[in-house]
Amino acid sequence: MASPVRMTISEVHALCMRGLIAHKLNFESAHALANVITAAERDGCRSHGLFRLPHYIDSLRYGLVDPETCPKLLPSAGSAVRVDAQKSFGALAWQLGLPQLVSKARQNGIAAYAVYNVFHYSALWHEMEDLAKEGLVGMAFLNSKSFVAHHGGSSKIYGTNPMAFGFPRGPDQPPVVFDQASAVMARGDIMMKEQQGDSIPPGCALDAAGNPTTDPAAALEGAQLTFGGAKGSNIALMVELMAAGLTGMPWSYEARQECVDQNSSVPTRNGEFVIAINPEMFGGTSEDTTKRLEELFEHILADPGTRLPSQRRYSSRQISETEGIDVDSKIHQAIMDRIQTAEE
Amino acid sequence: MASPVRMTISEVHALCMRGLIAHKLNFESAHALANVITAAERDGCRSHGLFRLPHYIDSLRYGLVDPETCPKLLPSAGSAVRVDAQKSFGALAWQLGLPQLVSKARQNGIAAYAVYNVFHYSALWHEMEDLAKEGLVGMAFLNSKSFVAHHGGSSKIYGTNPMAFGFPRGPDQPPVVFDQASAVMARGDIMMKEQQGDSIPPGCALDAAGNPTTDPAAALEGAQLTFGGAKGSNIALMVELMAAGLTGMPWSYEARQECVDQNSSVPTRNGEFVIAINPEMFGGTSEDTTKRLEELFEHILADPGTRLPSQRRYSSRQISETEGIDVDSKIHQAIMDRIQTAEE
Repeated sequence: MASPVRMTISEVHALCMRGLIAHKLNFESAHALANVITAAERDGCRSHGLFRLPHYIDSLRYGLVDPETCPKLLPSAGSAVRVDAQKSFGALAWQLGLPQLVSKARQNGIAAYAVYNVFHYSALWHEMEDLAKEGLVGMAFLNSKSFVAHHGGSSKIYGTNPMAFGFPRGPDQPPVVFDQASAVMARGDIMMKEQQGDSIPPGCALDAAGNPTTDPAAALEGAQLTFGGAKGSNIALMVELMAAGLTGMPWSYEARQECVDQNSSVPTRNGEFVIAINPEMFGGTSEDTTKRLEELFEHILADPGTRLPSQRRYSSRQISETEGIDVDSKIHQAIMDRIQTAEE
Repeated sequence: MASPVRMTISEVHALCMRGLIAHKLNFESAHALANVITAAERDGCRSHGLFRLPHYIDSLRYGLVDPETCPKLLPSAGSAVRVDAQKSFGALAWQLGLPQLVSKARQNGIAAYAVYNVFHYSALWHEMEDLAKEGLVGMAFLNSKSFVAHHGGSSKIYGTNPMAFGFPRGPDQPPVVFDQASAVMARGDIMMKEQQGDSIPPGCALDAAGNPTTDPAAALEGAQLTFGGAKGSNIALMVELMAAGLTGMPWSYEARQECVDQNSSVPTRNGEFVIAINPEMFGGTSEDTTKRLEELFEHILADPGTRLPSQRRYSSRQISETEGIDVDSKIHQAIMDRIQTAEE
């Protein structure tokens, strides 16, 4: 196996820009998408980092995403923010909607952002971090192409249907954020296990015949399972209804049908729904809240073997900032191949 | 074992009223609480039905809840609804806040209800049904006295921290609703297993020494575990931050410290946070939405062995309405004992 390619964070960003611009993606959209891919790579979320770049590029090559299209804000009232991505990627749509979402949540206590016709399968935690920087609590719901069975069944009903949550801490602490698939394993992690020739733990997936499997290739053909059985299946259903039900966008099984190549890993056209809450409209003063939060976290972390969600991510971020990032050589090559094809 | 007491739904309601009024609870609060206890008993959610009535009564007897106190609406702006329960039960506080919550959600697309100083450990699904009747999507978060460990630890950090979700269907269909503890098992279910002399499944709890146990008595002494490991622990943390973090109410471990008798089963003083969303402000027309929803549910239910959350509850409801309810004789006796004590 070839040794990994050591890159700085800004080199990763530049590689993203080069790959996306080479395939004619407009600068604003490329820049927004490069930001989220780079952030994932930097934070050690490899399955949402450069690993995804070839698939984003392929969605441009296959003509799924029009490289010149930009999202637009739709008229909206009250605490609602609506963005029609017009079949562009999710990152720029989020940048467009964020200022309205922040201002409406600040003013009204709670607000929501719905995005339509979006090709979005980036991580969601960076959206939660964006809200937390503004002092807002966040929740995000995103569906995708169906891979996951409803509890008790074996058909592909749900996407891996991630749900994210973020709660701001004091000014000196990064927020508490989680971003987790409703499936036991993230799709990207199974894909990486397959690439690495590893097996997956039992209880994560069924093969195409509906039998339990630990073979990542068989799992990718069959259906993934939800975490925690029926309760995780309820979470997957909630994400489906929030992301696709509220926006009128395709259910995950419809998004699958829309795919030209159902086994490809390009993003699909979906909806996303994000809630932002201003704690100051509901609770006490911010000094008290910060002190109380830290007391809770101290209490949790007093038990050996515990950690807060996102702690591992923040540690990776620090290491990446000082030591750079080791990029898998196969992934690097897949990106370079696509750049060459376009630049020839 | 004495045979169960067969009662009609209105007899159950009358029994609740008699028990609560005998202990001087004001009529409005008694009526609201009797409604939610009766609804739980009717729907086969026995652990939130008459089983809880002696504990509600005890919280009056112990002076935790002042029987004359009523909740009051706090001034609030934008999409925020705030109710100070003033140490009364949760049911009347919800009734008080609901009209504002509905009207703000309708007008602004999304709104939130926060309740403070509330003794609330009723089921949450009826709140979701109340919102669904108004065509609104709902989410609810409630913490309580700590019973549940953070993933990897063995200390009691979280309440069973239920989260509920409801999505309205067409006018002819009851809504899709789930209401689930972040713990693998609801506390009430473990308490019922103990009463019945049954064991609990493995993976649900640790004993007081931090070792896995299937003995319900040992589980009630030790710490319960979250569903789905780390992911369910994240859900428990989210519920804690939404219910207690946003309202400034006691963390679950603080609610435990507030208890005079830490092992009693009376409710504790907590916060609750409920979100209501108007789908019409985000998606398509209601006809389309209804049709699309039914297509999704048909798709899910086409797999043998699947069911939607709340289906079992709605079936029990139908049976109770025609055949009445079998009330456990021990629970009936515990209630009658308390009524006699007060009426003597």
